Amino acid sequence: MEFTVNQVAGMLGGVVKGDGNEKIKMLAKIQDARKGQIAFLSNPKYEQYIYTTQATAVIVKKDFAPRKELDTTLILVDDPYISFTVLLEEYHKLISFQKSGIEQPSFIGENSVTGKNIYRGAFSYIGNNVKVGDNVKIHPHAFIGDNAHVGDNTIIHAGVKIYSDTRIGNNCVIHAGTVIGSDGFGFAPQADGSYKTIPQMGNVVVEDNVTIGANTVIDCATLFGDSTVIHQGVKLDNLIQIAHNVEVGKNTVIAAQAGISGSTKIGENCMLAGQVGIAGHLVIANNTSLGAQAGVSKSIKDEGQKLIGYPVFDIKEYFRSYAVFKQLPDINFRLRELEKKVNPSQNGSAEKTASVD
Amino acid sequence: MEFTVNQVAGMLGGVVKGDGNEKIKMLAKIQDARKGQIAFLSNPKYEQYIYTTQATAVIVKKDFAPRKELDTTLILVDDPYISFTVLLEEYHKLISFQKSGIEQPSFIGENSVTGKNIYRGAFSYIGNNVKVGDNVKIHPHAFIGDNAHVGDNTIIHAGVKIYSDTRIGNNCVIHAGTVIGSDGFGFAPQADGSYKTIPQMGNVVVEDNVTIGANTVIDCATLFGDSTVIHQGVKLDNLIQIAHNVEVGKNTVIAAQAGISGSTKIGENCMLAGQVGIAGHLVIANNTSLGAQAGVSKSIKDEGQKLIGYPVFDIKEYFRSYAVFKQLPDINFRLRELEKKVNPSQNGSAEKTASVD
Amino acid sequence: MEFTVNQVAGMLGGVVKGDGNEKIKMLAKIQDARKGQIAFLSNPKYEQYIYTTQATAVIVKKDFAPRKELDTTLILVDDPYISFTVLLEEYHKLISFQKSGIEQPSFIGENSVTGKNIYRGAFSYIGNNVKVGDNVKIHPHAFIGDNAHVGDNTIIHAGVKIYSDTRIGNNCVIHAGTVIGSDGFGFAPQADGSYKTIPQMGNVVVEDNVTIGANTVIDCATLFGDSTVIHQGVKLDNLIQIAHNVEVGKNTVIAAQAGISGSTKIGENCMLAGQVGIAGHLVIANNTSLGAQAGVSKSIKDEGQKLIGYPVFDIKEYFRSYAVFKQLPDINFRLRELEKKVNPSQNGSAEKTASVD
Repeated sequence: MEFTVNQVAGMLGGVVKGDGNEKIKMLAKIQDARKGQIAFLSNPKYEQYIYTTQATAVIVKKDFAPRKELDTTLILVDDPYISFTVLLEEYHKLISFQKSGIEQPSFIGENSVTGKNIYRGAFSYIGNNVKVGDNVKIHPHAFIGDNAHVGDNTIIHAGVKIYSDTRIGNNCVIHAGTVIGSDGFGFAPQADGSYKTIPQMGNVVVEDNVTIGANTVIDCATLFGDSTVIHQGVKLDNLIQIAHNVEVGKNTVIAAQAGISGSTKIGENCMLAGQVGIAGHLVIANNTSLGAQAGVSKSIKDEGQKLIGYPVFDIKEYFRSYAVFKQLPDINFRLRELEKKVNPSQNGSAEKTASVD
Repeated sequence: MEFTVNQVAGMLGGVVKGDGNEKIKMLAKIQDARKGQIAFLSNPKYEQYIYTTQATAVIVKKDFAPRKELDTTLILVDDPYISFTVLLEEYHKLISFQKSGIEQPSFIGENSVTGKNIYRGAFSYIGNNVKVGDNVKIHPHAFIGDNAHVGDNTIIHAGVKIYSDTRIGNNCVIHAGTVIGSDGFGFAPQADGSYKTIPQMGNVVVEDNVTIGANTVIDCATLFGDSTVIHQGVKLDNLIQIAHNVEVGKNTVIAAQAGISGSTKIGENCMLAGQVGIAGHLVIANNTSLGAQAGVSKSIKDEGQKLIGYPVFDIKEYFRSYAVFKQLPDINFRLRELEKKVNPSQNGSAEKTASVD
Repeated sequence: MEFTVNQVAGMLGGVVKGDGNEKIKMLAKIQDARKGQIAFLSNPKYEQYIYTTQATAVIVKKDFAPRKELDTTLILVDDPYISFTVLLEEYHKLISFQKSGIEQPSFIGENSVTGKNIYRGAFSYIGNNVKVGDNVKIHPHAFIGDNAHVGDNTIIHAGVKIYSDTRIGNNCVIHAGTVIGSDGFGFAPQADGSYKTIPQMGNVVVEDNVTIGANTVIDCATLFGDSTVIHQGVKLDNLIQIAHNVEVGKNTVIAAQAGISGSTKIGENCMLAGQVGIAGHLVIANNTSLGAQAGVSKSIKDEGQKLIGYPVFDIKEYFRSYAVFKQLPDINFRLRELEKKVNPSQNGSAEKTASVD
């Protein structure tokens, strides 16, 4: 993973100003970069650093006019930030997909097939009748249960547990410790107060281009033939709970520690902030935005709302109400003062009411 | 796992109407079922599907009178839903317990004994002096620490971590990634602002018929001889935190992402919704129901309450208060209007008060 | 792990009264202790137990004057609780560090070095170019990625996943299932509603004397050269989310299920209760105390505050406001009554207003 400045400029469609034969090994921030590294300058407030940086090359806007002498090679592009992002992604892919081969000991059951250029880390486990696509990276301690399918170019990090019959699409990333396909939480109350387990026999379907963080849990659907579905392009953070039969719509983003109860359908392009909770059997409209710790107890029908609170309502109204909530002791006092004025003979009853709790 | 319709009817004490020799391999919903599958009809609004279903057999109420010709075999029973649940459970047991034998490599320490019909998946680890009962299924990457005991018919899914000295009862199910017996969170503040670890030397006891979801954590008790106890029949969902010395009473059900702080005793037959938090050293009465995201900071003495909010109070009262909370800006405005009317000369001070915050 | 009473008294600088040659194997509470165990008596309300305990020895205050005959040996010290804590810690160390050697199969990559007296449990995985210090205990199923460093005397419990390039200090304890170094949650929205992954190339630095609970997640920093930092002496509980580029200051304590969003800097000696959530890009002053389920959406500049609510404000004021919140239906009623009195002709409009929502 070493490129010349010329090679990098080629990837970006940029123009080199300086020595294009120098070697780049790494990306860095302009204020931290050292020899062998490439940085970018986009925000003018960082311009000062370009005159002192030790970076071998800096990506700059094509009209960048240095005000002092430069010690670094420039790559001139249209948008330095986007170009840098492209490099970051390329670099990340190089890193993410560099492992290959089969470390031992690892386990693969009967009738299971894996594609080309696979990595199976030591202590990874693939059950029976599993299909794994090309260029899949299965890190150590990952578990893939019987009959599961994993698409191409998917990365399964260390210790991920994928239960039987799960379907994972192409170009997914699943971070360490995440569990996919565990039993939904379904119990039928019995006359003696105990519970009988409702068996969970459906599966989980994770479509293409889904990223799932670490230690998240996605339960399987209850009945055979049903699926909990994470639609394409969804991004799930860490420690999220997705219950049985939930559907998360295309390109929806869910932040850490949010929880979705059973059978709820989340629309497309929604954004759920951290620690949001959604009750079961609801439908959440597309483009819904839920603020941190919001609690949803009813379906949300109108698209594009920004909501917060428990239960949720409009975020601006919430903050207006909350501003008054902070003044409630004063409001209570003022109300009593008014009551005394207006009903001078009923002071006793007003104070009695006010002393509740 | 293939039964004739006659065999299934025998399990259910039902009567066959049609060809009892046909083969059943799977259960399904009536609207989805195909040949070789069995479905049920309980709710009359699904009756239409029985006339078009491809199910090999359908379980119906014994007085079911078809209004059209049927293409499927019937099994007549008293309560089709309960009968179907019985089949689901039987089917689930067949699946859950079908693995057996010892996959290699797996690890078992000294002086450890395992019972009959055990499954030890590849990369499972059993420490020293461990006792594992009959018919226990230990999936890949599960860890059972020294001196732990596991009862009969218990399923330990992939990657479960059971620390030393833990006791797990019979007929339990523990889902992937769950940790049982990790250190309680106890630290003694020192004069310099640092903390000294209070060693955690107790254990965790999980009684019979307990189900625990995925990536949940149950800490051990602090002192030797003490236990964090999950009593029989308790159902814990995913990503739950149970701190040191907590007791969860018989048949209590706790939904995902709830957290119970140290030394709190939860009563029997309670229901805790998702993301509930309970402070430490409290006692929660039997049959308490806590709504989603509820926060409990004091003991709950009266049984059978339904509570919500932070701190919790009666759920109906909470929603009444919350309805007014949404109107607070309007209430504040109306109060100021009244003040102006009643105290026309003091408008300035009223406005000053109202601008607090 | 068997000591004489004399040896224990020697560790504590205490004086033996009774048979100093008796053997101690274990610590216990005075009311539970049996032969071969040692207990302590600090709180006078437990004094009754010393006359009936079966403990071989009891640690007491040096001026303890028994009111009845004793069957147990005493160790006289200045502060029995502190002395007992010292013993607990010593005992815990003995237990925590007693494993050593390399169980097979275990995996170690190229160019990786481990120190003296190491324990590498079966199925533990050490990647390439890893440095592990002396006396480190790596339990089964633990994963340490390429280029990671682990300091001396650190305990890595079963199934911990440490991504590449992570730095872990000395004297740390990391509990089972915790993930360190997973990708930060960063995605750039595209014109078609999909998201492009912002590669996460920084790392995580965990300084000395840090304890991390089970199933917690700490994401790596975004850019190469940046780190998510857990400073020395920090204590993290279970199921906590620490996002990319977060810094947690020295000796800060965070309880279970709290979540810190990206790039937030938490000061030193803070205390965060369970289920707290903090938004991204904030700075939290030293000695801040956040109550359970608190939500922080703005930086906290003044040190030493105790805050709660969403968004947070002073905890005492919160509870005063909350007391009035519970009375809001009554306040609304009283306000309408006043309006009727003061504006008898406008009842209609007042009622209309009051019926909002």
